[in-house]
Amino acid sequence: MHKASLATLAEQFTQMPAVRAMAIRPLDYDGRRLRLLAPLNANVNDKGCAFGGSLASAMTLAAWGLLVHKLTEAGLRAEVFVADSKLRYLTPLYQDLVAEAWLAPETSWEDFLAVLTSRGRARACLHARVADPAGGDATRMQARFAAFASRNG
Amino acid sequence: MHKASLATLAEQFTQMPAVRAMAIRPLDYDGRRLRLLAPLNANVNDKGCAFGGSLASAMTLAAWGLLVHKLTEAGLRAEVFVADSKLRYLTPLYQDLVAEAWLAPETSWEDFLAVLTSRGRARACLHARVADPAGGDATRMQARFAAFASRNG
Repeated sequence: MHKASLATLAEQFTQMPAVRAMAIRPLDYDGRRLRLLAPLNANVNDKGCAFGGSLASAMTLAAWGLLVHKLTEAGLRAEVFVADSKLRYLTPLYQDLVAEAWLAPETSWEDFLAVLTSRGRARACLHARVADPAGGDATRMQARFAAFASRNG
Repeated sequence: MHKASLATLAEQFTQMPAVRAMAIRPLDYDGRRLRLLAPLNANVNDKGCAFGGSLASAMTLAAWGLLVHKLTEAGLRAEVFVADSKLRYLTPLYQDLVAEAWLAPETSWEDFLAVLTSRGRARACLHARVADPAGGDATRMQARFAAFASRNG
Protein backbone atom coordinates (compact mmCIF):
# COMPACT_ATOMS: atom_id res chain seq x y z
CA MET A 1 0.00 0.00 0.00
CA HIS A 2 1.37 3.37 -0.97
CA LYS A 3 1.54 6.03 1.69
CA ALA A 4 -1.22 7.83 -0.18
CA SER A 5 -3.51 4.83 0.34
CA LEU A 6 -2.73 4.69 4.05
CA ALA A 7 -3.53 8.39 4.23
CA THR A 8 -6.86 7.78 2.47
CA LEU A 9 -7.69 5.05 4.98
CA ALA A 10 -6.69 7.32 7.86
CA GLU A 11 -9.02 9.98 6.47
CA GLN A 12 -11.88 7.45 6.29
CA PHE A 13 -11.25 6.46 9.91
CA THR A 14 -11.36 10.05 11.16
CA GLN A 15 -14.75 10.53 9.49
CA MET A 16 -16.21 7.91 11.86
CA PRO A 17 -16.62 9.64 15.25
CA ALA A 18 -16.21 6.49 17.39
CA VAL A 19 -13.06 5.52 15.48
CA ARG A 20 -11.69 9.04 15.79
CA ALA A 21 -12.32 8.90 19.55
CA MET A 22 -10.44 5.59 19.78
CA ALA A 23 -7.61 7.28 17.82
CA ILE A 24 -7.24 4.23 15.57
CA ARG A 25 -4.89 4.92 12.65
CA PRO A 26 -3.09 2.90 9.97
CA LEU A 27 0.43 1.87 10.96
CA ASP A 28 1.86 -0.09 8.02
CA TYR A 29 1.16 -2.56 5.24
CA ASP A 30 3.56 -5.18 3.90
CA GLY A 31 1.56 -6.24 0.84
CA ARG A 32 -0.29 -8.93 2.77
CA ARG A 33 -1.09 -7.63 6.25
CA LEU A 34 -2.47 -4.28 7.31
CA ARG A 35 -1.63 -3.06 10.81
CA LEU A 36 -3.46 -0.39 12.78
CA LEU A 37 -2.39 1.39 15.94
CA ALA A 38 -4.57 2.67 18.80
CA PRO A 39 -3.19 4.19 22.01
CA LEU A 40 -4.15 2.44 25.26
CA ASN A 41 -5.12 5.68 27.01
CA ALA A 42 -8.01 6.28 24.58
CA ASN A 43 -9.14 2.66 24.88
CA VAL A 44 -8.75 1.73 28.52
CA ASN A 45 -11.46 -0.08 30.51
CA ASP A 46 -12.39 -0.12 34.21
CA LYS A 47 -9.45 -2.44 34.97
CA GLY A 48 -6.74 -0.33 33.32
CA CYS A 49 -6.36 -2.66 30.32
CA ALA A 50 -7.74 -2.46 26.79
CA PHE A 51 -11.54 -2.27 26.46
CA GLY A 52 -13.03 -5.29 24.66
CA GLY A 53 -15.06 -3.08 22.36
CA SER A 54 -11.92 -1.21 21.28
CA LEU A 55 -10.12 -4.48 20.59
CA ALA A 56 -13.09 -5.67 18.53
CA SER A 57 -13.25 -2.34 16.70
CA ALA A 58 -9.52 -2.28 15.90
CA MET A 59 -9.52 -5.84 14.55
CA THR A 60 -12.72 -5.30 12.56
CA LEU A 61 -11.34 -2.07 11.07
CA ALA A 62 -8.01 -3.69 10.21
CA ALA A 63 -9.84 -6.38 8.24
CA TRP A 64 -12.26 -3.87 6.67
CA GLY A 65 -9.39 -1.55 5.75
CA LEU A 66 -7.42 -4.35 4.11
CA LEU A 67 -10.44 -5.35 2.03
CA VAL A 68 -11.16 -1.76 1.00
CA HIS A 69 -7.54 -1.32 -0.02
CA LYS A 70 -7.53 -4.50 -2.12
CA LEU A 71 -10.63 -3.24 -3.96
CA THR A 72 -9.02 0.15 -4.58
CA GLU A 73 -5.85 -1.54 -5.83
CA ALA A 74 -7.95 -3.58 -8.27
CA GLY A 75 -9.78 -0.48 -9.52
CA LEU A 76 -13.12 -1.70 -8.15
CA ARG A 77 -15.68 0.31 -6.20
CA ALA A 78 -17.80 -1.52 -3.65
CA GLU A 79 -19.45 -1.09 -0.27
CA VAL A 80 -17.93 -3.43 2.31
CA PHE A 81 -19.92 -4.68 5.33
CA VAL A 82 -18.90 -7.02 8.13
CA ALA A 83 -21.30 -10.01 8.13
CA ASP A 84 -20.21 -11.99 11.18
CA SER A 85 -17.23 -12.47 13.46
CA LYS A 86 -15.82 -14.69 16.16
CA LEU A 87 -13.53 -13.18 18.76
CA ARG A 88 -11.37 -14.63 21.47
CA TYR A 89 -9.98 -12.49 24.27
CA LEU A 90 -7.01 -14.48 25.52
CA THR A 91 -5.14 -12.16 27.85
CA PRO A 92 -5.64 -8.60 29.15
CA LEU A 93 -3.59 -6.02 27.23
CA TYR A 94 -1.82 -3.25 29.17
CA GLN A 95 -0.17 -1.50 26.22
CA ASP A 96 -1.08 0.28 22.98
CA LEU A 97 -3.19 -1.81 20.62
CA VAL A 98 -1.60 -3.00 17.37
CA ALA A 99 -4.23 -4.82 15.31
CA GLU A 100 -3.24 -6.67 12.14
CA ALA A 101 -5.45 -8.37 9.56
CA TRP A 102 -4.87 -10.76 6.68
CA LEU A 103 -6.90 -12.88 4.27
CA ALA A 104 -7.86 -16.35 5.57
CA PRO A 105 -5.26 -18.79 4.20
CA GLU A 106 -7.74 -21.05 2.41
CA THR A 107 -8.89 -18.24 0.11
CA SER A 108 -7.32 -15.85 -2.43
CA TRP A 109 -7.78 -12.22 -3.37
CA GLU A 110 -7.92 -13.27 -7.02
CA ASP A 111 -10.98 -15.46 -6.40
CA PHE A 112 -12.69 -12.79 -4.29
CA LEU A 113 -12.17 -10.10 -6.93
CA ALA A 114 -13.24 -12.42 -9.76
CA VAL A 115 -16.52 -13.28 -7.98
CA LEU A 116 -17.20 -9.62 -7.20
CA THR A 117 -16.59 -8.65 -10.82
CA SER A 118 -18.78 -11.38 -12.30
CA ARG A 119 -21.63 -11.46 -9.74
CA GLY A 120 -21.57 -7.93 -8.33
CA ARG A 121 -21.16 -9.26 -4.80
CA ALA A 122 -18.67 -11.45 -2.97
CA ARG A 123 -17.72 -12.62 0.50
CA ALA A 124 -14.27 -12.82 2.04
CA CYS A 125 -13.05 -14.34 5.31
CA LEU A 126 -10.34 -12.41 7.12
CA HIS A 127 -8.32 -13.09 10.24
CA ALA A 128 -7.01 -10.53 12.68
CA ARG A 129 -5.10 -10.37 15.93
CA VAL A 130 -3.82 -7.97 18.53
CA ALA A 131 -0.39 -9.02 19.76
CA ASP A 132 0.54 -9.24 23.44
CA PRO A 133 3.94 -8.03 24.70
CA ALA A 134 5.42 -11.56 24.57
CA GLY A 135 4.62 -11.89 20.87
CA GLY A 136 1.58 -14.11 21.35
CA ASP A 137 -2.03 -13.09 20.75
CA ALA A 138 -3.95 -10.96 23.23
CA THR A 139 -7.06 -11.27 21.02
CA ARG A 140 -7.96 -13.09 17.82
CA MET A 141 -10.75 -12.61 15.32
CA GLN A 142 -12.16 -14.40 12.31
CA ALA A 143 -14.71 -12.41 10.35
CA ARG A 144 -16.62 -12.63 7.12
CA PHE A 145 -17.24 -9.54 5.04
CA ALA A 146 -19.65 -8.91 2.17
CA ALA A 147 -18.78 -6.58 -0.68
CA PHE A 148 -21.41 -5.13 -3.02
CA ALA A 149 -20.15 -3.56 -6.25
CA SER A 150 -21.22 0.05 -6.72
CA ARG A 151 -23.42 0.52 -9.77
CA ASN A 152 -21.19 3.30 -11.01
CA GLY A 153 -18.05 1.40 -9.96
CA MET B 1 -32.12 -2.76 39.11
CA HIS B 2 -32.64 0.31 41.21
CA LYS B 3 -32.02 3.66 39.60
CA ALA B 4 -28.97 3.97 41.85
CA SER B 5 -27.50 0.84 40.25
CA LEU B 6 -28.12 2.18 36.75
CA ALA B 7 -26.41 5.40 37.81
CA THR B 8 -23.42 3.42 39.11
CA LEU B 9 -23.20 1.58 35.80
CA ALA B 10 -23.47 4.86 33.90
CA GLU B 11 -20.60 6.23 35.99
CA GLN B 12 -18.46 3.17 35.18
CA PHE B 13 -19.17 3.65 31.47
CA THR B 14 -18.12 7.29 31.51
CA GLN B 15 -14.81 6.33 33.09
CA MET B 16 -13.94 4.39 29.92
CA PRO B 17 -12.98 7.02 27.31
CA ALA B 18 -14.05 4.99 24.25
CA VAL B 19 -17.42 4.23 25.84
CA ARG B 20 -17.86 7.88 26.82
CA ALA B 21 -17.13 8.88 23.21
CA MET B 22 -19.75 6.41 21.95
CA ALA B 23 -22.16 7.98 24.49
CA ILE B 24 -23.37 4.54 25.57
CA ARG B 25 -25.61 4.75 28.65
CA PRO B 26 -27.96 2.46 30.59
CA LEU B 27 -31.58 2.73 29.44
CA ASP B 28 -33.58 0.32 31.61
CA TYR B 29 -33.63 -3.04 33.35
CA ASP B 30 -36.66 -5.29 33.84
CA GLY B 31 -35.10 -7.78 36.27
CA ARG B 32 -33.92 -10.02 33.45
CA ARG B 33 -32.70 -7.85 30.57
CA LEU B 34 -30.47 -4.79 30.66
CA ARG B 35 -30.83 -2.30 27.82
CA LEU B 36 -28.30 0.35 26.79
CA LEU B 37 -28.75 3.30 24.46
CA ALA B 38 -26.20 4.89 22.14
CA PRO B 39 -27.03 7.69 19.70
CA LEU B 40 -26.39 6.99 16.01
CA ASN B 41 -24.56 10.29 15.43
CA ALA B 42 -21.73 9.28 17.79
CA ASN B 43 -21.52 5.81 16.22
CA VAL B 44 -21.96 6.32 12.50
CA ASN B 45 -19.70 4.67 9.90
CA ASP B 46 -18.63 5.66 6.37
CA LYS B 47 -22.02 4.54 5.00
CA GLY B 48 -24.19 6.57 7.38
CA CYS B 49 -25.28 3.54 9.43
CA ALA B 50 -24.06 2.17 12.76
CA PHE B 51 -20.35 1.30 12.95
CA GLY B 52 -19.75 -2.43 13.55
CA GLY B 53 -17.32 -1.71 16.37
CA SER B 54 -19.94 0.39 18.16
CA LEU B 55 -22.54 -2.36 17.78
CA ALA B 56 -20.04 -4.89 19.18
CA SER B 57 -19.15 -2.52 22.01
CA ALA B 58 -22.77 -1.82 22.95
CA MET B 59 -23.73 -5.51 23.02
CA THR B 60 -20.58 -6.50 24.94
CA LEU B 61 -21.18 -3.72 27.48
CA ALA B 62 -24.84 -4.65 27.90
CA ALA B 63 -23.83 -8.22 28.75
CA TRP B 64 -20.92 -7.08 30.96
CA GLY B 65 -23.15 -4.57 32.75
CA LEU B 66 -25.83 -7.17 33.43
CA LEU B 67 -23.25 -9.53 34.91
CA VAL B 68 -21.70 -6.80 37.06
CA HIS B 69 -25.13 -5.86 38.33
CA LYS B 70 -26.02 -9.46 39.23
CA LEU B 71 -22.80 -9.71 41.23
CA THR B 72 -23.54 -6.46 43.05
CA GLU B 73 -27.08 -7.62 43.78
CA ALA B 74 -25.66 -10.83 45.28
CA GLY B 75 -23.18 -8.89 47.41
CA LEU B 76 -20.18 -10.36 45.57
CA ARG B 77 -17.13 -8.51 44.31
CA ALA B 78 -15.42 -9.85 41.18
CA GLU B 79 -13.58 -8.71 38.10
CA VAL B 80 -15.50 -9.57 34.95
CA PHE B 81 -13.77 -10.17 31.60
CA VAL B 82 -15.21 -11.09 28.23
CA ALA B 83 -13.64 -14.39 27.10
CA ASP B 84 -15.06 -14.89 23.61
CA SER B 85 -17.96 -13.79 21.44
CA LYS B 86 -19.77 -14.55 18.21
CA LEU B 87 -21.47 -11.71 16.39
CA ARG B 88 -23.83 -11.59 13.44
CA TYR B 89 -24.49 -8.34 11.61
CA LEU B 90 -27.81 -8.99 9.89
CA THR B 91 -28.93 -5.62 8.56
CA PRO B 92 -27.50 -2.07 8.54
CA LEU B 93 -28.94 0.12 11.31
CA TYR B 94 -29.88 3.72 10.50
CA GLN B 95 -31.17 4.73 13.95
CA ASP B 96 -29.99 5.02 17.56
CA LEU B 97 -28.57 1.78 18.98
CA VAL B 98 -30.56 -0.01 21.68
CA ALA B 99 -28.55 -3.01 22.88
CA GLU B 100 -30.09 -5.52 25.27
CA ALA B 101 -28.51 -8.49 27.02
CA TRP B 102 -29.79 -11.49 28.94
CA LEU B 103 -28.46 -14.73 30.39
CA ALA B 104 -28.34 -17.67 27.96
CA PRO B 105 -31.52 -19.71 28.53
CA GLU B 106 -29.76 -22.99 29.32
CA THR B 107 -28.06 -21.51 32.39
CA SER B 108 -29.09 -19.82 35.65
CA TRP B 109 -27.77 -16.97 37.75
CA GLU B 110 -28.06 -19.19 40.82
CA ASP B 111 -25.62 -21.72 39.35
CA PHE B 112 -23.21 -19.03 38.21
CA LEU B 113 -23.14 -17.34 41.62
CA ALA B 114 -22.81 -20.67 43.45
CA VAL B 115 -19.78 -21.66 41.34
CA LEU B 116 -18.17 -18.26 41.82
CA THR B 117 -18.66 -18.45 45.58
CA SER B 118 -17.31 -21.97 45.94
CA ARG B 119 -14.46 -21.87 43.39
CA GLY B 120 -13.57 -18.18 43.26
CA ARG B 121 -14.15 -18.10 39.50
CA ALA B 122 -17.03 -18.83 37.14
CA ARG B 123 -18.12 -18.48 33.54
CA ALA B 124 -21.41 -17.26 32.17
CA CYS B 125 -22.83 -17.24 28.65
CA LEU B 126 -24.89 -14.19 27.73
CA HIS B 127 -26.88 -13.25 24.66
CA ALA B 128 -27.39 -9.76 23.28
CA ARG B 129 -29.07 -8.04 20.37
CA VAL B 130 -29.59 -4.67 18.80
CA ALA B 131 -33.12 -4.35 17.43
CA ASP B 132 -33.90 -3.08 13.96
CA PRO B 133 -36.83 -0.69 13.32
CA ALA B 134 -39.16 -3.57 12.32
CA GLY B 135 -38.60 -5.32 15.66
CA GLY B 136 -36.21 -7.94 14.30
CA ASP B 137 -32.50 -8.11 15.06
CA ALA B 138 -29.99 -5.81 13.38
CA THR B 139 -27.17 -7.62 15.18
CA ARG B 140 -26.89 -10.59 17.53
CA MET B 141 -24.18 -11.69 19.93
CA GLN B 142 -23.41 -14.68 22.09
CA ALA B 143 -20.51 -14.19 24.49
CA ARG B 144 -18.87 -15.97 27.38
CA PHE B 145 -17.58 -14.02 30.35
CA ALA B 146 -15.22 -15.03 33.13
CA ALA B 147 -15.61 -13.66 36.66
CA PHE B 148 -12.80 -13.80 39.23
CA ALA B 149 -13.77 -13.16 42.84
CA SER B 150 -11.85 -10.31 44.46
CA ARG B 151 -9.73 -11.47 47.41
CA ASN B 152 -11.25 -8.78 49.58
CA GLY B 153 -14.74 -9.43 48.14
